[in-house]
Amino acid sequence: MSDFHGVFPYLVSPIGDDGRVDDEALARLVEHLIAAGVHGLTPLGSTGEFAYLSFEQKRRIVEVTVETAAGRLPVVAGVAATTTADAVRQAVEWRKLGCAGILAILEAYFPVPDDGVVAYFGAIADAVDCPIVLYTNPQFQRSDLSLAAIERLAGRHRNIRYLKDASTNTGRLLSIMNRVPDLGIFSASAHIPACVMLLGGRGWMAGPACLIPRQSVRLYELCRAGRWAESMVLQRQLWRLNQLFAKHALAACIKGGLELQGLAVGSPLAPQPALDATGRAELQAVLESLGALP
Amino acid sequence: MSDFHGVFPYLVSPIGDDGRVDDEALARLVEHLIAAGVHGLTPLGSTGEFAYLSFEQKRRIVEVTVETAAGRLPVVAGVAATTTADAVRQAVEWRKLGCAGILAILEAYFPVPDDGVVAYFGAIADAVDCPIVLYTNPQFQRSDLSLAAIERLAGRHRNIRYLKDASTNTGRLLSIMNRVPDLGIFSASAHIPACVMLLGGRGWMAGPACLIPRQSVRLYELCRAGRWAESMVLQRQLWRLNQLFAKHALAACIKGGLELQGLAVGSPLAPQPALDATGRAELQAVLESLGALP
Amino acid sequence: MSDFHGVFPYLVSPIGDDGRVDDEALARLVEHLIAAGVHGLTPLGSTGEFAYLSFEQKRRIVEVTVETAAGRLPVVAGVAATTTADAVRQAVEWRKLGCAGILAILEAYFPVPDDGVVAYFGAIADAVDCPIVLYTNPQFQRSDLSLAAIERLAGRHRNIRYLKDASTNTGRLLSIMNRVPDLGIFSASAHIPACVMLLGGRGWMAGPACLIPRQSVRLYELCRAGRWAESMVLQRQLWRLNQLFAKHALAACIKGGLELQGLAVGSPLAPQPALDATGRAELQAVLESLGALP
Amino acid sequence: MSDFHGVFPYLVSPIGDDGRVDDEALARLVEHLIAAGVHGLTPLGSTGEFAYLSFEQKRRIVEVTVETAAGRLPVVAGVAATTTADAVRQAVEWRKLGCAGILAILEAYFPVPDDGVVAYFGAIADAVDCPIVLYTNPQFQRSDLSLAAIERLAGRHRNIRYLKDASTNTGRLLSIMNRVPDLGIFSASAHIPACVMLLGGRGWMAGPACLIPRQSVRLYELCRAGRWAESMVLQRQLWRLNQLFAKHALAACIKGGLELQGLAVGSPLAPQPALDATGRAELQAVLESLGALP
Repeated sequence: MSDFHGVFPYLVSPIGDDGRVDDEALARLVEHLIAAGVHGLTPLGSTGEFAYLSFEQKRRIVEVTVETAAGRLPVVAGVAATTTADAVRQAVEWRKLGCAGILAILEAYFPVPDDGVVAYFGAIADAVDCPIVLYTNPQFQRSDLSLAAIERLAGRHRNIRYLKDASTNTGRLLSIMNRVPDLGIFSASAHIPACVMLLGGRGWMAGPACLIPRQSVRLYELCRAGRWAESMVLQRQLWRLNQLFAKHALAACIKGGLELQGLAVGSPLAPQPALDATGRAELQAVLESLGALP
Repeated sequence: MSDFHGVFPYLVSPIGDDGRVDDEALARLVEHLIAAGVHGLTPLGSTGEFAYLSFEQKRRIVEVTVETAAGRLPVVAGVAATTTADAVRQAVEWRKLGCAGILAILEAYFPVPDDGVVAYFGAIADAVDCPIVLYTNPQFQRSDLSLAAIERLAGRHRNIRYLKDASTNTGRLLSIMNRVPDLGIFSASAHIPACVMLLGGRGWMAGPACLIPRQSVRLYELCRAGRWAESMVLQRQLWRLNQLFAKHALAACIKGGLELQGLAVGSPLAPQPALDATGRAELQAVLESLGALP
Repeated sequence: MSDFHGVFPYLVSPIGDDGRVDDEALARLVEHLIAAGVHGLTPLGSTGEFAYLSFEQKRRIVEVTVETAAGRLPVVAGVAATTTADAVRQAVEWRKLGCAGILAILEAYFPVPDDGVVAYFGAIADAVDCPIVLYTNPQFQRSDLSLAAIERLAGRHRNIRYLKDASTNTGRLLSIMNRVPDLGIFSASAHIPACVMLLGGRGWMAGPACLIPRQSVRLYELCRAGRWAESMVLQRQLWRLNQLFAKHALAACIKGGLELQGLAVGSPLAPQPALDATGRAELQAVLESLGALP
Repeated sequence: MSDFHGVFPYLVSPIGDDGRVDDEALARLVEHLIAAGVHGLTPLGSTGEFAYLSFEQKRRIVEVTVETAAGRLPVVAGVAATTTADAVRQAVEWRKLGCAGILAILEAYFPVPDDGVVAYFGAIADAVDCPIVLYTNPQFQRSDLSLAAIERLAGRHRNIRYLKDASTNTGRLLSIMNRVPDLGIFSASAHIPACVMLLGGRGWMAGPACLIPRQSVRLYELCRAGRWAESMVLQRQLWRLNQLFAKHALAACIKGGLELQGLAVGSPLAPQPALDATGRAELQAVLESLGALP
């Protein structure tokens, strides 16, 4: 099985007014990111508006991403559902389309006890033969992965090999590493990537990398080389984008930023608002200061 | 347009292991509730596991409910989505199937500002010609209807005529009544129905009425007759079921109780757990004390 | 032991710029409320800024209140502390000063497990020979009284005879009544008093009664007489004051309102802000509509 | 003015059953920590149970700490109050007793708007001539310091020179550093110290350093020398103590650990529970593995 590491931008989902995936816009974004040197691609994360898309829309997004990537780098696509049956259906289909890995997310309406959480993620892992990245985001999701559940899952399923944590609690990452040392940890945009790398992380899966792919790869390389002082100089600058990202809605922020970069991908799906004028101005200023405007 | 009032049981959704709606179980439940004298039926509320069903499953549940009810009482079906387009599609389809009203719910992953909330519910109201019941449940949903948003919606759309509030904050209902006097208020299981009736409410839409339909109708009639002392004697007894309902998962509790009553409807969809032995014993005791077991 | 029932206004604490209690302002307020017919007085509740006063300031407020009341009605004073020792010291002293009852509050910095909660309130009950009113306000306090803790306390201590719940969850009151039927329940300003009376409550302890004492007594009498329809007409009007009270800071709102009524009691203690111009205008309008301005 | 940096253990407060400060136990702890090489001492933080002590108890703790330290290292004592007047009184008194700095904390019962927050901390800064460390702990305190409030305070008061943040959100620290670069940042036990040092932090003020002072100083020195790989090896081990500290109550955990080390300081003040047998066993195992038992 392949080894995942480095910078995996969370792709946005370009959807036209008629509800159809804008294949060209998506393919153009994929080419742009590959040219910038990123290490993998993650469609259908939070930034990819997975919670707003139909099965058919999601399927097409995975298909276009995999076909455009054409094996040049791994595609790790998001699977998110409230029922186990729906999650397994997605995972099997995405794998058939050629994904190298699955980012597994549990959506919930009613709270799910740990046994249910373990059963859900376990069923996904059993349904496919590729690596699974557990994804937990207590800020937006109505369930969380407890340390005990993570340990049970990693102990039972050989292909549950990574975890992406989108809480803001960086100490929790070290607690997970201490408890389940074999699990590879990816940072999310709510953590400082250089800190997570210092802790022993494998990289990051995050929306901002869509807007600053080259700079993100440069930061990753500095960290990997143990050049921590230099990495912090760069990290300090890049963090300004994460701050904006947290302040404004995620999808709106990345879609708005791509438009500023000449890579129009449309607006977030209604009733989500597009980035407003203030947000656009703040984003323009930050992207400019980072050399991320054409 | 019809006037809604009284007891509207939230229907559970009987789904087989193959993912198909169990038409017979659902029709049997509908006949049972009509025989008990309830005033309306609400499929696809929280108790109806709307968050766990596909469009096709939801569609079939509405169809069976409407066909079985056959005009004997109004069916007010739930519409819930993260996108405006999906919500409108559901509302139009449910109306075509013969629903007398729509219970409108906003699902959200990212927080939605008030303008987006108003646009979402407004689009549903504009798409159909029947009464709309706004539904807000801040405990499970990731958005809430502010008083200002409720006022804007009721002022602009003639068919937004009711609201069901599933917060536990009963004072909020009186605040809404003071601010938007023309809006008809329905209680949820988190409020004490007799109190909401005293405030001027129209009735209640709630899961427990599936298990105690006759007793619920009796309580409603006592309240309507202004026999408050008697209503409180009954309310005090019935409240024990609401307490259980809040303690155990909603769908599991109602599905488990119907099985005890000889009206098997299956389990909640995985990874949701079924009612455990302790919950079943507690439920058995309460239903027995209320004369609600065969 | 005396029986508590009816309207107990939460007194504000008039403190001068030099930190001394303004005896005259407090005595004037007490006479004003007694003349209006209230059934008891509660100094040192939330509205009384208990969390902002020293032991000496609190002691003087109890002393002036008891001396002015002079046995015409019961004074139930607040005891609030983080340590058991401090709470017992206050309770013993307030009782010596002539209080008829104690309103017992647990302040917490770190969370306290149920055993500690029970030990704290039990120690207060054991230290005095008068009735105890348990007070729980999960909105502002960092601890809550679980139903199990309430049941243990009421079962073990004969003088723990009442409970005031300041959550907004009215259903919780009925759950407590069902579980511990002998405990007398008082409403707080976050509940609708007429609803709590319908449930079987004894009355209410709340800040707004400082501003509308006559109207509050009238509402209580209508409820006691079972004239529920009339009580709701009045309740609907009075609720507008509770809404303001919830929107603006409690102490600021009552202190500002008393000033509008010609009963100046100073400002809340810094850094709490006084009522601002908008709040004052809203309050003026509501008090005027209720006939509560001179 | 002196420059603060390095490891500042949060001292526990040894209080006898009679409510008196145990001077000897406190002095012994201070000598023990100084011998271990720590860079400063912080009495009256969260771990020091500031929320449970009277003015007189707090005063004596500061006095004993300063007298024992005798100028060998800076003492930065906690000031915490709900009113500005009380906070200023403490700050002036602690400074008179010989503190080198003040750790300023806002306690709140009702929420305080930003203007009030700024006025409170500004009044403390104006009342003394020594450096102020702003302290924010959104987990236990009912107020938080917004980035805007921090910026206003640092801009207006020359002696507001440091901030200690006890949220778990490490990214927030980098956001503060980006916005107010001159403010020196100290880590709390909820952050990973090595990460905060990488970000440019000055050190940490935290309870666990009471139990592992030598190991903490060693970690600080590795970070200062830029030996990040080695620092992470040590950090990974020490983090196990922070995990226990977060799981069990802070004061109970440190007081229980000191007893295991032969430095008995009594129990937390009632109704707080002492460390239970499970906690003691876990703590024993971790301290042993870190070479922190005699």
